[in-house]
Amino acid sequence: MIKVGIAGARGYTGRELVRYLLNHPQVEITRLWAHEIKPGGEVFSKICPEFKGLLDVKIKRFSTDEVKKLDVVFLALPHTVSMNYVPRIINKVRLVVDLSADYRLKDPTVYKKWYRVNHRDLKNLKRAVYGLTEINREKIKNAKLIANPGCYPSGIILALYPLMKAGLLRNVDILVDSKSGISGAGRKKDIGLLYAEVAENIKPYKVNGHQHIPEIVQVLQLKSREKFSFIPQVVPLIRGIINMVYIHFPKKPSKEIFTIYKNYYRLEKFIRIYRKREVPELKDVLYTNFCDLGYLDWLDGNTFFIISCVDNLGKGAAGQAVQNMNVALGLNETTGLI
Amino acid sequence: MIKVGIAGARGYTGRELVRYLLNHPQVEITRLWAHEIKPGGEVFSKICPEFKGLLDVKIKRFSTDEVKKLDVVFLALPHTVSMNYVPRIINKVRLVVDLSADYRLKDPTVYKKWYRVNHRDLKNLKRAVYGLTEINREKIKNAKLIANPGCYPSGIILALYPLMKAGLLRNVDILVDSKSGISGAGRKKDIGLLYAEVAENIKPYKVNGHQHIPEIVQVLQLKSREKFSFIPQVVPLIRGIINMVYIHFPKKPSKEIFTIYKNYYRLEKFIRIYRKREVPELKDVLYTNFCDLGYLDWLDGNTFFIISCVDNLGKGAAGQAVQNMNVALGLNETTGLI
Amino acid sequence: MIKVGIAGARGYTGRELVRYLLNHPQVEITRLWAHEIKPGGEVFSKICPEFKGLLDVKIKRFSTDEVKKLDVVFLALPHTVSMNYVPRIINKVRLVVDLSADYRLKDPTVYKKWYRVNHRDLKNLKRAVYGLTEINREKIKNAKLIANPGCYPSGIILALYPLMKAGLLRNVDILVDSKSGISGAGRKKDIGLLYAEVAENIKPYKVNGHQHIPEIVQVLQLKSREKFSFIPQVVPLIRGIINMVYIHFPKKPSKEIFTIYKNYYRLEKFIRIYRKREVPELKDVLYTNFCDLGYLDWLDGNTFFIISCVDNLGKGAAGQAVQNMNVALGLNETTGLI
Amino acid sequence: MIKVGIAGARGYTGRELVRYLLNHPQVEITRLWAHEIKPGGEVFSKICPEFKGLLDVKIKRFSTDEVKKLDVVFLALPHTVSMNYVPRIINKVRLVVDLSADYRLKDPTVYKKWYRVNHRDLKNLKRAVYGLTEINREKIKNAKLIANPGCYPSGIILALYPLMKAGLLRNVDILVDSKSGISGAGRKKDIGLLYAEVAENIKPYKVNGHQHIPEIVQVLQLKSREKFSFIPQVVPLIRGIINMVYIHFPKKPSKEIFTIYKNYYRLEKFIRIYRKREVPELKDVLYTNFCDLGYLDWLDGNTFFIISCVDNLGKGAAGQAVQNMNVALGLNETTGLI
Repeated sequence: MIKVGIAGARGYTGRELVRYLLNHPQVEITRLWAHEIKPGGEVFSKICPEFKGLLDVKIKRFSTDEVKKLDVVFLALPHTVSMNYVPRIINKVRLVVDLSADYRLKDPTVYKKWYRVNHRDLKNLKRAVYGLTEINREKIKNAKLIANPGCYPSGIILALYPLMKAGLLRNVDILVDSKSGISGAGRKKDIGLLYAEVAENIKPYKVNGHQHIPEIVQVLQLKSREKFSFIPQVVPLIRGIINMVYIHFPKKPSKEIFTIYKNYYRLEKFIRIYRKREVPELKDVLYTNFCDLGYLDWLDGNTFFIISCVDNLGKGAAGQAVQNMNVALGLNETTGLI
Repeated sequence: MIKVGIAGARGYTGRELVRYLLNHPQVEITRLWAHEIKPGGEVFSKICPEFKGLLDVKIKRFSTDEVKKLDVVFLALPHTVSMNYVPRIINKVRLVVDLSADYRLKDPTVYKKWYRVNHRDLKNLKRAVYGLTEINREKIKNAKLIANPGCYPSGIILALYPLMKAGLLRNVDILVDSKSGISGAGRKKDIGLLYAEVAENIKPYKVNGHQHIPEIVQVLQLKSREKFSFIPQVVPLIRGIINMVYIHFPKKPSKEIFTIYKNYYRLEKFIRIYRKREVPELKDVLYTNFCDLGYLDWLDGNTFFIISCVDNLGKGAAGQAVQNMNVALGLNETTGLI
Repeated sequence: MIKVGIAGARGYTGRELVRYLLNHPQVEITRLWAHEIKPGGEVFSKICPEFKGLLDVKIKRFSTDEVKKLDVVFLALPHTVSMNYVPRIINKVRLVVDLSADYRLKDPTVYKKWYRVNHRDLKNLKRAVYGLTEINREKIKNAKLIANPGCYPSGIILALYPLMKAGLLRNVDILVDSKSGISGAGRKKDIGLLYAEVAENIKPYKVNGHQHIPEIVQVLQLKSREKFSFIPQVVPLIRGIINMVYIHFPKKPSKEIFTIYKNYYRLEKFIRIYRKREVPELKDVLYTNFCDLGYLDWLDGNTFFIISCVDNLGKGAAGQAVQNMNVALGLNETTGLI
Repeated sequence: MIKVGIAGARGYTGRELVRYLLNHPQVEITRLWAHEIKPGGEVFSKICPEFKGLLDVKIKRFSTDEVKKLDVVFLALPHTVSMNYVPRIINKVRLVVDLSADYRLKDPTVYKKWYRVNHRDLKNLKRAVYGLTEINREKIKNAKLIANPGCYPSGIILALYPLMKAGLLRNVDILVDSKSGISGAGRKKDIGLLYAEVAENIKPYKVNGHQHIPEIVQVLQLKSREKFSFIPQVVPLIRGIINMVYIHFPKKPSKEIFTIYKNYYRLEKFIRIYRKREVPELKDVLYTNFCDLGYLDWLDGNTFFIISCVDNLGKGAAGQAVQNMNVALGLNETTGLI
């Protein structure tokens, strides 16, 4: 059995990791850590009663000593916090999967610009592998430290990557209109996350100012002449993201784009391509590790349209993290996920 | 025009007061106050954009000086805070309507037991009139300080008061199973109020330990031999309370209870009696000052059943407050409300 | 008092009309009609209990005889049904406001294409005035028959009309990504409208195939060289529409577009312009007749971005209808609405 | 591998069965049937896209011929329909699990009274075993036909059964105030199930008239001198039921009731007993086969209070059905469920 520890197990992403890993036949959840836990630790299923009878172990404050008995550590911690932990544990275990943004951006000046702190672990930043399995599988196989993608980038990059590989993202205008469930913002005390603020409302925010933009730009290798606009919105959903991806071409390419997608993802278990002009609904990916891609055809004029749906806690976080672990440890990629 | 000021105008109750008073033809909203406002004040409709174009005045930190130009002050402040304001303003205006719990409980030892602080304004506590208009109209007409009822007590007392007046609450067992929308908990930073915690959930809380219990017991004059159990629950609603009131009688009284209700409330504009065994739905009272009473018949055995619905921000707070103001100032009781 | 009748008073739009008109000091609701009513009629507030104590009149099956005592008739009927009623009542009253699509499209061949039936009342189709008050006020003043705009067109046209008047919609690519509450689909038996299908879901539908497209194209006078794409989505909301309007210009115009909007709507009471880059939230227009316009600035590249919010039952239907009535009858335009 | 067929696979219960059985390592879903399917059948994952890539088999109209290759058939059909199928298949397979009400009530006159049709399969009605595993495990082991319990009865009976076995339900007054998610009403065209009717609403219905009452009365062996009142309510939830069970005793029994529960369920994997006065939240049982029991203490007076939570599609339907299959076929009871 693979022994794993999860830091930040009480948050929405941490709990989803627990849910997936409990269902994983080759994994044993051995350690759970979180902030604001009483000194001696607390019973996890008292704090997160959905796991009563399933995982009645203790959750404790983090301690480096406990790491060495483990094979894998998942860090479901806030941005700028993870990079305090990685250097202390990276040499004690086979694999660290970091679900924060700390190891995603290769250029520390870009990191500083968007997250407003200096990166404090440049050594491990270099060795970190970006963990979107479908586009980086070979590197993940040998990874020691995996930077698990952001929730928006997961769905958006998967919607655009085949076009990039086909050389069709040159000089285009990309517009992404995304709607996200509120768990994407984390489990924190914030007026904007209250039920009475989110229900019966739609709230656009951080228009062209969201910190996930540089991650998308980096992976898609967008140049300044390729325009990228990102309009995220909070909608009354616990979970799930639907991305409307609009690509305005200077002129229509001669290749059949739908076929590019069909071919590119033909062997992928977690990418489901809908038929041309068929639209996916968000609910069909919830509680799964799937990314559904649909429509995949031209709108009026030179705009190509792709809908991508992911569960921000699934393919956008915990599901993706388990998929990465499976690949990195040489397990069957879908174990615990399908 | 009646000049009014509202303290705590940014909260859910404060906003609802603004909404009602904007619709009141004899009122002018002259002052708005709140905590955590920049020193020079801020434009109210920037903070609460639903009022853009409707009330573009400033909201400021509270200042006693501004009160004397006013006729009425509404205090939509947290419990234990209102009693700091009342002594400073009570003699400067015609009427103070306090929407907190601070002046509802006549016995300061009971107040201390439930709110855990000593009452600091015993003088005004004595003169305060409990503002459930339908049961206290005559006293409200001469009131200088009105203690506006709590949201749960509003619906529950209205459901039980006719029985008390008929002498039928002696030796009974009362059980109230209430479900409330989340705005009843106020607009505050609290994990339990987050969308991702409240949606797709029902959460019982403070079973027989809710601070509204002594208010109900006081008004209904319940004795220790009358048992009262209160089981409140948070449900995924922005607003609204539905109370299921079960009264277990030692033996069935000979009087026809339905008729008692019909008669007691026959002249009341804001109490709507449904036909016997007809059930009200919560949605029909939302955004109104109505209290709907339904079923009003026996269940199996000696249990009489009453459903009462109110909007916790309407009849349970702001609507009730406006109704009280109307009565206290000699206006038509329904002005601005229907 | 202006005597009005409402056909289709039981649907979501019909009820909202009743709500607005009850609040209108110069109107008396005299007749209510609906299908599927028992022969002798039924008490309206039994069917729609939110109006208990407010409007306890009967709702009946439609009868032409009853129309002649009225001043105004509102038709809140399904598409293709209204045109059966208009010819029978148009000469009996001062004003008919039709909330269906039947009199919006000037070209009957376009009507047939999108609604799949022949238009059966060409004579009145000609005289009908398109009732988006802000762009057609003078014609509405003399109107006998008003074609009240569709819910999506209301917000989208108001977001684009100033640009058209400034001659800036030539050769552009317009993309509108709209999210609508479910009441826009009407109160009908349909699996897709069930709570368990709509909650925790987002569902794109009728991509570039929605019947509101020709209405928008007609009013904005779009030519075939101007591209228009429309991507509507159902989100878990009872009511409200947020439109994300993206206009891709071949090159940036020299004029300051924000100023065009500020000027164009400077006298309008129901259009609220947010400051540049400031974003409106949907909740702030719910239960109102406002259209909020925000962001109003360039995204990356040559794409101009406008957010428009309306309540589909307010400015998108019933509120707009009352505003039109006010204008047509020479009343104050905001009466009953603010 | 155990070969199973599911009739009614498109409804909410049917889909949940598919979800559980896909996760069951010893089961192969071989046949799917539903009404209103095109003659040649349709691809199941086209109709229910959440199963795209997971179960891309055909769903067809029911045919008895296909049954004989199967080991188990689940009938997720409406009441009064199942009894048309059972006689045709019962001798062709090892086990039939019927999720309708048709085989739950032992007395056909009671069945007729509540479901308004004559029972048409008295022979199999006699042999049917009531499938609440925790109270009927031994009989289920030898069952050929299992009558899977109703969603309300599952949670309510589990909350009361230990008291009955302890002889403590004599002469008591039982009051059950239940709130259910809307999927309990099935996936059918009904105005009352629309999002715009259910959201922001609570609707009591069938007070003391719900068809699940006789099932509860039968299993708990309630006599006419024991009073039972049932007040179900629809709340804005996709799934889940929370039952507030109030038992009014003529006088308090001397036994410690909490201990009775702890002992009775001490070996049960799917019953989770909360500590005394600790309250469960509904969300913690969603998507699971758990029944959570909490509070388990006295209220004011002689009323004992139990909260029970189940997922109406889990322990209240599909999860329970899989648990029953496991027991009947001699598999590990929790396989596919934990």
